[in-house]
Amino acid sequence: MFRTVERTEAGVRLLDQRKLPAETVYVTCASADEVAEAIRLMVVRGAPAIGVTAAFGVALAASQGAGLRPSALDAAIVEARDALAAARPTAVNLFWALARMEAAARGARAAGAGNAELAARLEREAQAIHDEDLEACRAIGRHAAPLVPERATVLTHCNAGGLATAGYGTALGVIRGAVDAGKAIRVLAGETRPFLQGARLTAWELMEDGIETVLIADVAAGSLMRAGQVDLVVVGADRIAANGDVANKIGTYPVAVLAKENGIPFYVAAPTSTIDLAAATGDDIPIEQRDPAEVTEFLGRRVAPAGVAVLNPAFDVTPARYVAAIVTERGIARPPYPASLAALVPFP
Amino acid sequence: MFRTVERTEAGVRLLDQRKLPAETVYVTCASADEVAEAIRLMVVRGAPAIGVTAAFGVALAASQGAGLRPSALDAAIVEARDALAAARPTAVNLFWALARMEAAARGARAAGAGNAELAARLEREAQAIHDEDLEACRAIGRHAAPLVPERATVLTHCNAGGLATAGYGTALGVIRGAVDAGKAIRVLAGETRPFLQGARLTAWELMEDGIETVLIADVAAGSLMRAGQVDLVVVGADRIAANGDVANKIGTYPVAVLAKENGIPFYVAAPTSTIDLAAATGDDIPIEQRDPAEVTEFLGRRVAPAGVAVLNPAFDVTPARYVAAIVTERGIARPPYPASLAALVPFP
Repeated sequence: MFRTVERTEAGVRLLDQRKLPAETVYVTCASADEVAEAIRLMVVRGAPAIGVTAAFGVALAASQGAGLRPSALDAAIVEARDALAAARPTAVNLFWALARMEAAARGARAAGAGNAELAARLEREAQAIHDEDLEACRAIGRHAAPLVPERATVLTHCNAGGLATAGYGTALGVIRGAVDAGKAIRVLAGETRPFLQGARLTAWELMEDGIETVLIADVAAGSLMRAGQVDLVVVGADRIAANGDVANKIGTYPVAVLAKENGIPFYVAAPTSTIDLAAATGDDIPIEQRDPAEVTEFLGRRVAPAGVAVLNPAFDVTPARYVAAIVTERGIARPPYPASLAALVPFP
Repeated sequence: MFRTVERTEAGVRLLDQRKLPAETVYVTCASADEVAEAIRLMVVRGAPAIGVTAAFGVALAASQGAGLRPSALDAAIVEARDALAAARPTAVNLFWALARMEAAARGARAAGAGNAELAARLEREAQAIHDEDLEACRAIGRHAAPLVPERATVLTHCNAGGLATAGYGTALGVIRGAVDAGKAIRVLAGETRPFLQGARLTAWELMEDGIETVLIADVAAGSLMRAGQVDLVVVGADRIAANGDVANKIGTYPVAVLAKENGIPFYVAAPTSTIDLAAATGDDIPIEQRDPAEVTEFLGRRVAPAGVAVLNPAFDVTPARYVAAIVTERGIARPPYPASLAALVPFP
């Protein structure tokens, strides 16, 4: 069984998701800056996993700076936080986890903690974020039970699996929950260009679990829906606005529109840490633009003419009206989302 | 300037589209069987180009068999026709061109032609199919003028360009026609997984012509439409049913649905040889399933886990209700299509 992210003596250990499925290689980040770089390079990706990883990065900085003067350690923690916050802009779990780590640090200092105690507190907080994320995914799987028929073909996009979380997954948590409950589930995995998280990650982790998986080019989802071969869609989320608009991997919005057009329910699975009540609508969510080489090159070899212009947005926003339900660890939110989401977010 | 397909002394010469844009390599097919294999392997692709190529393949068989007894030559022509017809199932232009060659052969024999005269007749017929296709593309470009604003961003999918025809293109003929008329056109080219005709071919031929081109992953088309960055969509077609349903490269249907959802006109550009009045609706059009390796491998390297199941339909059907207009060399068909298409097809 793989471990997406864990804190080890040497630092923060990540399964290098860029190498999957060909190689199962772990890398250890020995500093918060290395953790930030790993997030930026997508060694680790997936909104919840990014949050967990960033939290471990802050804890690492705190433990490594325990010998500093207290004010210098506090500055080092702020520096680590800022570097991690700059790594990627769209997934709100990153900022949520960093804010939680910062609150823990403030609380510890306010209670008179010295450096060693502060570091220990932050290590515990990061581990708690990790453990709670894993538990949240399992709860998402349980809460989703009424949404998944006894026999179903489920389309998913990108990887909202164990690799995108501390384990079990959000969208794939819904699928694992259904499989664990004895339902006959077949998964259609969109390959998810340009980074191929579906082909490389979702197909891999579902096959590891023995779950029936069929890989498709993203462009094939539409005609399969029209042919009646999809019973429901479930995806993860990188940020959910207060009105229920969902930012997720580029290509999610097309899937949602196609689902609506074909009368297929479109569900989003995410922990409440993905809900950003400060974003009124999807228009308030920053969308990361990534390197054109993700589109123009394939395994390091060019497929497009040299010099071609490229637009490579990493995410899109699916308006709330396409979303049949949002499954969280605290239960299912249904339209109207402004009320149902607000009710689910603790201490908003 | 490239030549997609031409008859040379040595056989049928094709620009090897699998090698573009890295290499501009021509291959010569020395027999009808080699022509059929080149079509199957997608050395040449694009519905009109396949039709032209198959016609040259029949002419080649006729010329090479001129020394046979007449009945043996006729049998060789039938054999060539059958091999070519089996190469790919969806594009109707292939069958249209073969039927036209067969009619020419019958006519020549009925008029008392010997082998040499028959072969010459078939060479002329194939060249006429080629030349008429080129002229049809230019006419499509002219007829489409009222559909394209003075300034427009045009989204296209796959390659319906000079590489998919005898030259100039159908969908790209609409774009070239607008550019030739002095309009300010920017093209968004979907990369077109899994074979990447958009990234490899459309981007290449538009850049060769100096037309502003932006490459995107197919999954990015939706959010760009939603952001108001697309004024119109134009695609080619592999077969158009009598009711206006359009079979085209996989991924066309999603683009059409997204265009409708965002109030953007979706146009199809194709010669009348693409219209199949014998197909009442899209349900009557066979959809080719291609090798899973197109999805799981890239340049011979696996990107998906070994043994993963794959669905790889090469085409999808866009129902007529999504199609704002179909531009042919004989003019524009608009809904209701059963009447407007029938009126455009000569000698149906």
